[in-house]
Amino acid sequence: MSFQRIAVIGLGLLGGSVGLAIKAHLPGATTTGYDADPATRARAAERGLVDQICDTAADAVKDAELVVLCVPVGAMAAAAKELAGTLPADALVSDVGSSKQSVAKALAEALPGHAIIPAHPVAGTERSGPDAGFASLFQQRWCILTPPEDADPAKLAALSAFWEALGARVEVMDAAHHDLVLAVTSHLPHLIAYTIVGTASDLEGVTEGEVIKYSAGGFRDFTRIAASDPTMWRDVFLANKDAVLEMLQRFTEDLTALQRAIRIGDGDQLFEHFTRTRAIRRSIIELGQDDARPDFGRSDHGQS
Amino acid sequence: MSFQRIAVIGLGLLGGSVGLAIKAHLPGATTTGYDADPATRARAAERGLVDQICDTAADAVKDAELVVLCVPVGAMAAAAKELAGTLPADALVSDVGSSKQSVAKALAEALPGHAIIPAHPVAGTERSGPDAGFASLFQQRWCILTPPEDADPAKLAALSAFWEALGARVEVMDAAHHDLVLAVTSHLPHLIAYTIVGTASDLEGVTEGEVIKYSAGGFRDFTRIAASDPTMWRDVFLANKDAVLEMLQRFTEDLTALQRAIRIGDGDQLFEHFTRTRAIRRSIIELGQDDARPDFGRSDHGQS
Repeated sequence: MSFQRIAVIGLGLLGGSVGLAIKAHLPGATTTGYDADPATRARAAERGLVDQICDTAADAVKDAELVVLCVPVGAMAAAAKELAGTLPADALVSDVGSSKQSVAKALAEALPGHAIIPAHPVAGTERSGPDAGFASLFQQRWCILTPPEDADPAKLAALSAFWEALGARVEVMDAAHHDLVLAVTSHLPHLIAYTIVGTASDLEGVTEGEVIKYSAGGFRDFTRIAASDPTMWRDVFLANKDAVLEMLQRFTEDLTALQRAIRIGDGDQLFEHFTRTRAIRRSIIELGQDDARPDFGRSDHGQS
Repeated sequence: MSFQRIAVIGLGLLGGSVGLAIKAHLPGATTTGYDADPATRARAAERGLVDQICDTAADAVKDAELVVLCVPVGAMAAAAKELAGTLPADALVSDVGSSKQSVAKALAEALPGHAIIPAHPVAGTERSGPDAGFASLFQQRWCILTPPEDADPAKLAALSAFWEALGARVEVMDAAHHDLVLAVTSHLPHLIAYTIVGTASDLEGVTEGEVIKYSAGGFRDFTRIAASDPTMWRDVFLANKDAVLEMLQRFTEDLTALQRAIRIGDGDQLFEHFTRTRAIRRSIIELGQDDARPDFGRSDHGQS
């Protein structure tokens, strides 16, 4: 079993990348697409993100074997309701949202009786909109599937094969664990980055111009993910509130401990902590989840 | 006035880059170098970081017109004392440390009567040691000079010209303001990154393997600067304690406000905050202080 007719709902960074990756890796499949924003639909048509752009979600899914919802997690319920009337009975509905318990609940309520397997490709850039997508976004990235207990094994296998065809590696876990893992590897880092960029832009003793000018000291790394889509991230924090607040609590405890070490001048504790964190970076690079070039290869400076 | 004989004390990322940049951009100058670690001296000689490696700091500076101290800020006083006996009376002593009030004080005490103009090139990567340096590190980066009030204008001009020759843009400010600006653009980001990487590696519900595997969700950006040299950063936090603690206080207040917005479900506040932070990123890229490619150009994915 493999999906030949795929509908992509939402044509921003993720939806556009799904469409382009299908075109690149699944040449036998045909794709329909829809976005609530007419300007996005027009631009998606120009870029050829999917084979056919439809004027309604209902129209886009009417012949689909697989529907991939690529809208902010807060918009999943409404998007699902829009297509409920024309959704074929045997179609599989999936998504790419960053929180999985909330999405599973929203989709199950909006589409009773339909097959639903939520998914989350852990991939992205700071760009958004119909110009942001690209076919290789999922290469070497992990895609996490969170099937409900009664999921059809054949559909689960087909969805795994779909993501693997797009270049991803697939992992299956339950939605609650996904939400905890992503709270620490994605949601908390985004929240911290948004916070520090806000803090830096709102100081009386240091101008915003100075912050920008001297950002190469470390600050600029945070600004990349703090440039991510505000709607998407608002929804993620509200949808995965409990896990985010739990991770935030841990982070705050650890920050307080380092703050105290600085205040009392405990250099040994700082040194010990800073040494431990180096090993994590090495592992991430060894696993191919980041660019090994120093400084991310910025300016491509040679290492002669 | 320009410096023809330059001594570089400390041959890690910064010292090595200074040496190689001099070689690339100031072919008339001759360089001597010293590092407290014999293995680093041997490797520096192999890479040709400076023209001549000396066995003592005193020997390295004995004919110097400019001495650039490239050691952790906590080691400045000891390094200065080592070379005090042979330092020529008219030599200028400078450094590359990330905190400037503490360094100014340490150097003034260790080298009474000598000309001292502290400096801080705002540039670096997460690598350290004698293999980390490269000639183009300072290209397009800012170098901040913090001359004491009675600094010799001719020496200040010569030091400015030196850094401009190495590719940097030069700014002059007082040491206290430097320490405040860098606390927000560099020290706080490093502290936050070190904290979150520690938090993530020390959770009971999520394994370190999972954190590494799904790091592409945002976490990996933090690990880069949390891989920086532990000794250097321990010293920076202890040396610039007051400004770091002040910025940390601001950050914590802002984080608490966003935490509250999440807890009470105030999506508007989150959206407003996340929208504001996007503009900063744009400005940093416009000013040439970061790589404009999405995702830092990781994997060099095309944007077609």
